[in-house]
Amino acid sequence: MILRQRLAAEFLGSALLAATVIGSGIMAQNLAGGYVAVALLANTGATVAVLAVLIALLAPVSGAHFNPVVSLVQAVRHAMRWREAALYMGMQVVGCCFGAVLAHAMFGLVWLQSSAHVRSGPAMWLSEAVATFGLILVILGCRRDRDVPWMVAAWIGAAYWFTASTSFANPAITIARSLSNTFAGIAPVDVPAFIAAQLLGALAAIPAVRFLQVSRTGSVDPHVR
Amino acid sequence: MILRQRLAAEFLGSALLAATVIGSGIMAQNLAGGYVAVALLANTGATVAVLAVLIALLAPVSGAHFNPVVSLVQAVRHAMRWREAALYMGMQVVGCCFGAVLAHAMFGLVWLQSSAHVRSGPAMWLSEAVATFGLILVILGCRRDRDVPWMVAAWIGAAYWFTASTSFANPAITIARSLSNTFAGIAPVDVPAFIAAQLLGALAAIPAVRFLQVSRTGSVDPHVR
Amino acid sequence: MILRQRLAAEFLGSALLAATVIGSGIMAQNLAGGYVAVALLANTGATVAVLAVLIALLAPVSGAHFNPVVSLVQAVRHAMRWREAALYMGMQVVGCCFGAVLAHAMFGLVWLQSSAHVRSGPAMWLSEAVATFGLILVILGCRRDRDVPWMVAAWIGAAYWFTASTSFANPAITIARSLSNTFAGIAPVDVPAFIAAQLLGALAAIPAVRFLQVSRTGSVDPHVR
Amino acid sequence: MILRQRLAAEFLGSALLAATVIGSGIMAQNLAGGYVAVALLANTGATVAVLAVLIALLAPVSGAHFNPVVSLVQAVRHAMRWREAALYMGMQVVGCCFGAVLAHAMFGLVWLQSSAHVRSGPAMWLSEAVATFGLILVILGCRRDRDVPWMVAAWIGAAYWFTASTSFANPAITIARSLSNTFAGIAPVDVPAFIAAQLLGALAAIPAVRFLQVSRTGSVDPHVR
Repeated sequence: MILRQRLAAEFLGSALLAATVIGSGIMAQNLAGGYVAVALLANTGATVAVLAVLIALLAPVSGAHFNPVVSLVQAVRHAMRWREAALYMGMQVVGCCFGAVLAHAMFGLVWLQSSAHVRSGPAMWLSEAVATFGLILVILGCRRDRDVPWMVAAWIGAAYWFTASTSFANPAITIARSLSNTFAGIAPVDVPAFIAAQLLGALAAIPAVRFLQVSRTGSVDPHVR
Repeated sequence: MILRQRLAAEFLGSALLAATVIGSGIMAQNLAGGYVAVALLANTGATVAVLAVLIALLAPVSGAHFNPVVSLVQAVRHAMRWREAALYMGMQVVGCCFGAVLAHAMFGLVWLQSSAHVRSGPAMWLSEAVATFGLILVILGCRRDRDVPWMVAAWIGAAYWFTASTSFANPAITIARSLSNTFAGIAPVDVPAFIAAQLLGALAAIPAVRFLQVSRTGSVDPHVR
Repeated sequence: MILRQRLAAEFLGSALLAATVIGSGIMAQNLAGGYVAVALLANTGATVAVLAVLIALLAPVSGAHFNPVVSLVQAVRHAMRWREAALYMGMQVVGCCFGAVLAHAMFGLVWLQSSAHVRSGPAMWLSEAVATFGLILVILGCRRDRDVPWMVAAWIGAAYWFTASTSFANPAITIARSLSNTFAGIAPVDVPAFIAAQLLGALAAIPAVRFLQVSRTGSVDPHVR
Repeated sequence: MILRQRLAAEFLGSALLAATVIGSGIMAQNLAGGYVAVALLANTGATVAVLAVLIALLAPVSGAHFNPVVSLVQAVRHAMRWREAALYMGMQVVGCCFGAVLAHAMFGLVWLQSSAHVRSGPAMWLSEAVATFGLILVILGCRRDRDVPWMVAAWIGAAYWFTASTSFANPAITIARSLSNTFAGIAPVDVPAFIAAQLLGALAAIPAVRFLQVSRTGSVDPHVR
């Protein structure tokens, strides 16, 4: 694949992922009438389903990262060039923000918002680190390409519930969610600490994968395939 | 497969799909007692499950389109003859309408109804375009036949929640739902705009698939297999 | 496999299936506090999950019928000897009834009960016929043995919601459910009509499968494998 | 794999499994506002998803037991050395307890607690025996390694609902849950009887598997692979 196609795939996947996370949160909140557990169940189901589809569809094109920490980890592991990782990260942030706008447009809301949803404190940051650690462990440790879609989706689905932060685990999604004052939102001031925790969790997964020898030597990355 | 069998498969699949969409909506509304989020969760689960089953079962016979925009796209891409696409579309509409009647009969309701459920406005139309764009992207872009059932089902399941219209994404289903004044209904007057939005979304997916080079050269279609 | 093992597999699978259908209904009713939609969601999820597991586990031993109409259809299609089909049916009924007792014991209830849950009328009977028609269509039409578990489970899961009867689709389960005055129960007087409707639906599926040429020539049956 | 890696995999898997079971229970209880059925649905979904992921990820390293009765059964069947089974069991208990602490830390709760959740009586013990019997049946009886993740997850998911005890089926998880005075907790005094019931159920599965001849001669175990 040429770079232009790969970046387009990262944009498209990131946009549809963010639109799903935010859009299904809006729908769930509209319909759940205060029953937050039911709203989060619906939000989880939609996220899990679209994540698996987008990875299966776009992994052959771009590797289906949709997540700056995934591209970062691949660059750190020399499975991806740094320059391309930087371009990926840019497209992921732009794509996720576009997805937030798309979700708002589909629900007839103001396109750009600023979230007032406070998500802060050590418990939240530990949650993000654990969720992102597991995400990188699953991505690097999965033995067969065909299992990546369901395994990533299932991990994120579980982490929506077993972490206190509902598992953002993705800096681009975190930034996009700060643009939405809805169910899935996060106050902009809380974004940097979330991203820092995600980075720590992601980097901690690299030696864990190496110790357990569960890596496939970078086969998630399209260069290596 | 001879044409008669393929048309029968399209009729059967469309009928059971529409019966599930409408029937599970009736059941969900009966049991949910006003908790719309729970009703939509059940409606989503039933739709996703039956969609995957019907595609897996009938794709080897007819390609398992069950959707006029899918047949249209295959004709536009020269993966299907126009005359056969037209016959498919006719059977899909007839099948879906029969499914609506079957659902009503199974719940002891009046067989033919006219929905009063208003679904209109630019947000709804954008939702339908996005949902159908993604559906065609998934169908044309899926690399392996065996992945089509779960990927189509997962996309539709997610789109039930992340779009404002609950993702009809199918003109035949849209027409059938206008015949049911229940949970899944849509007022007949709102049908044409929904179908127009679905067509725009579907046609927009063709160049996207080409640019991303994710196509399998029409292997969803039975002629090519 | 010798017959003794195959009958033991039918007993075990039928017992665990019935225990799940009835037991998860009891649990769901206990916890749902009148929210029937949530109770049926849980009942559906448990049934779907155990059905897929039991079929995957025991199909290599006995064919994993767990359902008298499945054995009947295989005998009618000459894919199974009539005498063995009769033994299968007997074990399925005994197994399902044992499963009902087991469910009651696990929840500390009276072991044998008589249901007062009225389920009757043409809408219910049509529902049972449609559900069983689809079940046999899926079993006979599924192209690959490995797809049978998820396809049967998904069909039943959808039919729990899109039929008015919540899709018993199995005479042995129907009899067992008449022994339980709980969520999943059915009044004994309503059992014969349910079974008659199931038989009609099942037999109607045989010519449908033949016309669509979706059969695998009996590979669900252990004799043919 | 060398023993150190295998023990690390057992620790990691057990910790993340316990963190999910307990953490998702806390989240569910926080959000469900007394609707216990919805809370258990969420708890089930998260457990099922993470169980499948962890088994798929770590089975190639350690066999992905995460459960002392699984290691015990493998030792009894001579598919694993007794000394290694003992080390596995130790790591599983330590890992699950660490997971409980991690879950509490992620939700900002006191790290070590003592549960006051009474779970006792013959109905509960029968439930645990049935759930563990089925778990071992599935693990030993599953024909293909690749099916183990979803089959174990689906069995546990169903058993969360069809047993009165919500299916602990794992002594290490049982001990860890006694350290959490939250949704998933169990009073320490009730632990020994739960573990005894689990042992009985697990051991009863060995002759059942042998009679049904559904075993793969120990291929779940990493030594044999």
